[in-house]
Amino acid sequence: MSQETILELDLGPRSYALHIGSGLLAGLGERLRPKVKGGRVAVITNETVAPLYLEPVTCALRDSGFAVLPVILPDGESHKHWGTLQTIFDHLIEGRFERSDALLALGGGVIGDMTGFAAASYLRGVAFAQVPTTLLAQVDASVGGKTGINHRLGKNLIGAFHQPCLVLMDVETLRTLPERERLAGMAEVIKYGIIRDAGLFSLLEERLEAILALETATLTRVLRTCCAIKAEIVAADEREHGTRALLNLGHTFGHAIEALTGYDAWLHGEAVAAGMAVATRLAESLGLCDPADATRIRNLLTRAGLPVTIPARPVAEYLEAMSHDKKVASGKIRYVLPEGIGKASVQGEIPAAAVEAALAAAISC
Amino acid sequence: MSQETILELDLGPRSYALHIGSGLLAGLGERLRPKVKGGRVAVITNETVAPLYLEPVTCALRDSGFAVLPVILPDGESHKHWGTLQTIFDHLIEGRFERSDALLALGGGVIGDMTGFAAASYLRGVAFAQVPTTLLAQVDASVGGKTGINHRLGKNLIGAFHQPCLVLMDVETLRTLPERERLAGMAEVIKYGIIRDAGLFSLLEERLEAILALETATLTRVLRTCCAIKAEIVAADEREHGTRALLNLGHTFGHAIEALTGYDAWLHGEAVAAGMAVATRLAESLGLCDPADATRIRNLLTRAGLPVTIPARPVAEYLEAMSHDKKVASGKIRYVLPEGIGKASVQGEIPAAAVEAALAAAISC
Repeated sequence: MSQETILELDLGPRSYALHIGSGLLAGLGERLRPKVKGGRVAVITNETVAPLYLEPVTCALRDSGFAVLPVILPDGESHKHWGTLQTIFDHLIEGRFERSDALLALGGGVIGDMTGFAAASYLRGVAFAQVPTTLLAQVDASVGGKTGINHRLGKNLIGAFHQPCLVLMDVETLRTLPERERLAGMAEVIKYGIIRDAGLFSLLEERLEAILALETATLTRVLRTCCAIKAEIVAADEREHGTRALLNLGHTFGHAIEALTGYDAWLHGEAVAAGMAVATRLAESLGLCDPADATRIRNLLTRAGLPVTIPARPVAEYLEAMSHDKKVASGKIRYVLPEGIGKASVQGEIPAAAVEAALAAAISC
Repeated sequence: MSQETILELDLGPRSYALHIGSGLLAGLGERLRPKVKGGRVAVITNETVAPLYLEPVTCALRDSGFAVLPVILPDGESHKHWGTLQTIFDHLIEGRFERSDALLALGGGVIGDMTGFAAASYLRGVAFAQVPTTLLAQVDASVGGKTGINHRLGKNLIGAFHQPCLVLMDVETLRTLPERERLAGMAEVIKYGIIRDAGLFSLLEERLEAILALETATLTRVLRTCCAIKAEIVAADEREHGTRALLNLGHTFGHAIEALTGYDAWLHGEAVAAGMAVATRLAESLGLCDPADATRIRNLLTRAGLPVTIPARPVAEYLEAMSHDKKVASGKIRYVLPEGIGKASVQGEIPAAAVEAALAAAISC
C-alpha cells in the first residue's frame, strides 16, 4: 500500500513534480517513463545505497521498459570532485548514452549534486531524476536544481543550475538511514521553520521525537511542508539573485566548518546546525533576533542531537574559509540571519567585529 | 580609424550583440562595461595569443575601470580537457572572483569553448565575453553558446549551452594568424554557403583570393553574412533540437578524423573540410546532390587549400569513432547532407553501405 502526495514546482518550461510518500519506489518507472524520450537510464548511486535500493529501483525501471546502467560510486563528500564525475562520464560514453537518455540519482545529497552536474554537462545537457534516500537530500538537495562538485578551496564552487524532470521521495528509505544522518537531516528541517514557518517550528518542538522515530504521517507532512517552502522560494528566484539566499541560513559558517575539517569529519547537516547557531548568536548580538527566540532555536537543535558550537580553531581561519563563499559580493560576505522564529533576512553590512565575536563565542571549550 | 557593424542575436533574456569590424579592440572596455556588474575580468588566453593581444585588451579593459586577471594557457586542442579547465578555476578562486565578475575569451575556438564552459560552471554561472582572434572562432565558435571540453573518447562530449554577453571580432587580428589556420577557418565559411546561401558560395568562388588576402571590406561582409546565418539558425533552435544540426555539416566525419588522429595533427577546419567532402560524396551517391554542385564544392575546398580526402584508416575505425557522435539518436547517426549549393538537410535513415562506400572513396591513396 502506498501513500502519495504530489507537489508541483512551477519553473515554466523547467517545471517538475515532487512525489512524496511511502511505498513509492515500485511506481518509479511508470512516473519516469513520460519524462524521458530515450530508452536508457543510468542509475548513479554509491556503495552504501546500492545494496539497499539498487535492485528495487532497477526492477521498477525495467518494468517500464527502460534499460538500466548502474554506476556505483564510493560514498562520501570527499568524493564529490571531478575525478568521480569523470567515472560517471566514462560509463555514459562507453554505454553510448544519448541526449534522449536519462540519469537517475539514487542516494543522498552528494549523489544528487554530482548526478545533476553530470546530467547538466554530458552532451551539454540530458534529463535527470532524483530519488533521494536521505532526509537531508529529501528536504533540501533534491529540490531546486543546484548541482555541483567541490574544489579544494571550497564547496560546490563548480556546478550548474539544472532542474530534474522528476523527484520521488519514499520516506520508507529513511528507515535504513543511520541515526546520525537522520539527525543531520533535521538541521535543514529546522532551518525551514526558522526562515519561513513558525508553525512548522512549533510542530517540530511538539513532535520532534515522533518525527525522529519516522512516524509516517507526521514525517510526510513535515517533508511536504519543507519542500513546499523550498519550491516557493526557488520558483520566485531560480538562480539565487535574491530571496533564494535565505535557504543558506547557517551555510556560510557551516561551509567554513566543513572546509576546515576536511569535509568528512562533519556531516553537512551538522555543520549547518552549528552554522545556524553562530548566525543566531550574531543576530542576537545585533538586536535582530529576540533572545527568547534564539534560545528556542538552540534548544531545538540540541534536542535533535545537533551541535551548537564549532571546532576550536583560530577565528581568522574561519574568516579566511568564509571569504570563498559564493555569496560574497564586492568583497563583502552577505549573511543570512534569523529575525526570530519564522523570518530571516540577508544582511550585507555586518561589522567584522560582530562576526568575530559570534564565532569566538560559538567555539566549544 | 575603426569600422564596425553590429549584429543582434535574439535569444530573449540571453540576447547579445556581435561587433564585427576593424580596429575594434581599443573600444572593448566601453562595450563590455554595461554588461558586467562586477569590477573584474579574467582574460583567458594562450601562450601564442598573449604576446600579440593581451596588452591591448588589458589596456582597453583597464581604461573602462576593470581590474584584469590574465590566465595564460598552453595552446592547442590537446589541452581542451578538464586539467586545463581546472587551471582556470584555480585562478578564479584564488583571485576571489565573484558571481558578478566576468571572464573574457581571447583566442581561437579552444579558448572560447573552455572559457565558456568555465563561465557556465564557476559558481554555477558567471558572465563571459568573446574576443575571437581566429577566422574559425569568428565565424563559428563565438556565436551560439556551445561550450565544452573533450573526452578521450570524443570531442566536446562534456559542456554546456552558455551564451556570451558580448562578442567582439576585430578582423585585424587575423593578420597575425598563420596561413594554415586562416585556410582552415575558410572551411566553416564555405560551409555556410553550402548549407544556406548560394549567393555567399558564388561570392567565395569569385573573391576567394581577396578574402584569403584579408581584404577588409570583403572579409567584413563575409564574416557578417556567416554570423548572420548562424545567428538566425541558433535563434530558431538554441539547444539543437532540430535545424541547428545543419551547422554540423562535415562535423560527424570531421570529428572522427580528429579523434583517430589525436586532435593535434589536423586542424578542426581541415577535418570539417574533409568531412564535408565525404558528406558531399555520400549525398551525391544517394541522388541528393547534383554532381555539378558536388564538383563545385570540392573545387572550392581545393582552391582554399583544404583537404577533400581522409587519412588511410580502416573504414571500421571511422564508423566506431562516429558512433560516439552527440547527434546519434536511438543508435542511429543522423547525417547532415548537402542538397546542392545553398541547402542541406538532416538524414536519419542512411544505409550503412552507402556511408562505408563514401568513406572508402574519400580515403586518400
